[in-house]
Amino acid sequence: MKRRRPDENWVVERIYEHFAGGKQHIAGRAVGLDIGDDAALFQPKSGRETILTCDWFLEGTHFLRKKHPPDAVGWKCLARALSDVAAMGGVPRCFLLSLALPESHTGRWLDAFLGGLRRASRKFGCALTGGDTTRRREILMNVTIVGEIRNARAVLRSGAQPGDIIYVTGRLGEAELGLRILRKGNSQARPGNPFLEKHLYPEPRLALGQWLAEKNLATSMMDLSDGLSSDLPRLCASSGVGARVESAKLPVVRLPNAGREPGVDPLQLGLHGGDDYELLFTVRPNKVNMLPKTLQGVPLTAIGRITNKRELVLLEEQGRTRQLTSAGWDSFRNTR
Amino acid sequence: MKRRRPDENWVVERIYEHFAGGKQHIAGRAVGLDIGDDAALFQPKSGRETILTCDWFLEGTHFLRKKHPPDAVGWKCLARALSDVAAMGGVPRCFLLSLALPESHTGRWLDAFLGGLRRASRKFGCALTGGDTTRRREILMNVTIVGEIRNARAVLRSGAQPGDIIYVTGRLGEAELGLRILRKGNSQARPGNPFLEKHLYPEPRLALGQWLAEKNLATSMMDLSDGLSSDLPRLCASSGVGARVESAKLPVVRLPNAGREPGVDPLQLGLHGGDDYELLFTVRPNKVNMLPKTLQGVPLTAIGRITNKRELVLLEEQGRTRQLTSAGWDSFRNTR
Repeated sequence: MKRRRPDENWVVERIYEHFAGGKQHIAGRAVGLDIGDDAALFQPKSGRETILTCDWFLEGTHFLRKKHPPDAVGWKCLARALSDVAAMGGVPRCFLLSLALPESHTGRWLDAFLGGLRRASRKFGCALTGGDTTRRREILMNVTIVGEIRNARAVLRSGAQPGDIIYVTGRLGEAELGLRILRKGNSQARPGNPFLEKHLYPEPRLALGQWLAEKNLATSMMDLSDGLSSDLPRLCASSGVGARVESAKLPVVRLPNAGREPGVDPLQLGLHGGDDYELLFTVRPNKVNMLPKTLQGVPLTAIGRITNKRELVLLEEQGRTRQLTSAGWDSFRNTR
Repeated sequence: MKRRRPDENWVVERIYEHFAGGKQHIAGRAVGLDIGDDAALFQPKSGRETILTCDWFLEGTHFLRKKHPPDAVGWKCLARALSDVAAMGGVPRCFLLSLALPESHTGRWLDAFLGGLRRASRKFGCALTGGDTTRRREILMNVTIVGEIRNARAVLRSGAQPGDIIYVTGRLGEAELGLRILRKGNSQARPGNPFLEKHLYPEPRLALGQWLAEKNLATSMMDLSDGLSSDLPRLCASSGVGARVESAKLPVVRLPNAGREPGVDPLQLGLHGGDDYELLFTVRPNKVNMLPKTLQGVPLTAIGRITNKRELVLLEEQGRTRQLTSAGWDSFRNTR
């Protein structure tokens, strides 16, 4: 492939072609990609607070260059950052992309990456508005999302009260199983495998989070990115409470026959598996009848109750209880 | 030093201690550090546009672990990102810090880094409001700044018109000379050396940028981060114009006797040296008499004129003219 030797302008031009060629429209309004300027400008709506969040997405830590298709890397770097906006109940507006990559990846890889990124950008109504690019031996990304929510409607982690019922969306452990399939690269590692799809192309629960915030139903909320056993303690610590979870109620991954292998335990996957990007939230007991069983096809499942003892207890199927200890994802403990 | 083995919470707690222990106040208002939540919340002022910008600051590319003091790394990662807000004429409000670092750097190095970051945060009135941390072999940073400006007052790169006078602030090439001193590590590489200070602790021209925007004096503006010969073409391309610069007028670095070495040419430093974070802007000829010679101690110097020919010409002291070619910083061309 004969082309001009890439410089920073060249990478920026590729991004511009992918995103501004087809003009971005969010909620009916055209959104500019101010690639030619020092910074991007964004017009906030009155009566709204701005939601800000940023997320690393780094080769070797969060994805594997040789295993993850570039299209999925593009989709996922945006989708997982959007999950933080979903967890506040917010509406995404725009994002900034910081991208570092080797010269060898400024051709086909970059195009496929931008394709996945653009699909996620359109699907979730979040326009690219700026960023920074540089050359680097490793592929590094950082995504900043700007969202909005009506004043004082954001759902924080800190509002859970003793007696509240704990809910999760979706099924837990599916993405972790997808990661195992991807790493093994066996016969299941084919497009269309639902666990692989969940790992590669997660769908942030934006509509669900917005609905819960709008109806004022959730007393606290966060997204499950590192696994229930790591994330639930964070919600409890923020709220100054404890929790009692019933393992029989956990909506854990359903293994097909092919997935039943030694070492693959659905409960362990559901408790400790990361990358699900489902929502974890709490509801006052007198409001639980306002919750449907599923919303837009996503199941909502009560898994336990908030307690005033500052400890996390798992009630096992045999009726025994034990401490729930964090064994989810922590980059300072785990390596992928 | 005996301490608990660091995990992600531990790094976040160190950041919290440095920033929230002393409560952040920006423009008289307390600003929260929402470390316990999925995302940060920010209340925009009415009648203002939000300015968004993000910047990589990567070991090996933008700083050297063994040469740059951690305090300077902290200061500079924020200061250089703020320079983009200055270049729009905006007022900074808050920032997000994404930080990746090795476990070996979560003690003294992290403390010194956070010390420099906090000093810059206070000096420039920009509060830490969120971020993301992860473990990594290399030290990586990404800083997102949120600023504000009155509606329709932002100064873009695209407004320069033929006949406009081109200005720069400060002296060009000082930071590049400081970098050379730092790399050599010779007798000049001592605290207090003005070139070293300019390289390590740049001061974004926030007050100056705000003044130019408020007075509606600049038709276009950007900051000088990669060097005049790389940045001026970007301003001209955005505006669809050319430029004629007089080398005799350039306020280039003034070498002390000790700095007069073979290979150190002030004009070359001034044309191509990066990291100055001065402002480059254009003014209508009928408004130049409204500009002072210095503002808050920073000189403002006319260096040439915008032309309608799409080329960049340098008028040399001997009266000859030549094409000005980009030889500033580009990570795809240079390595540091």
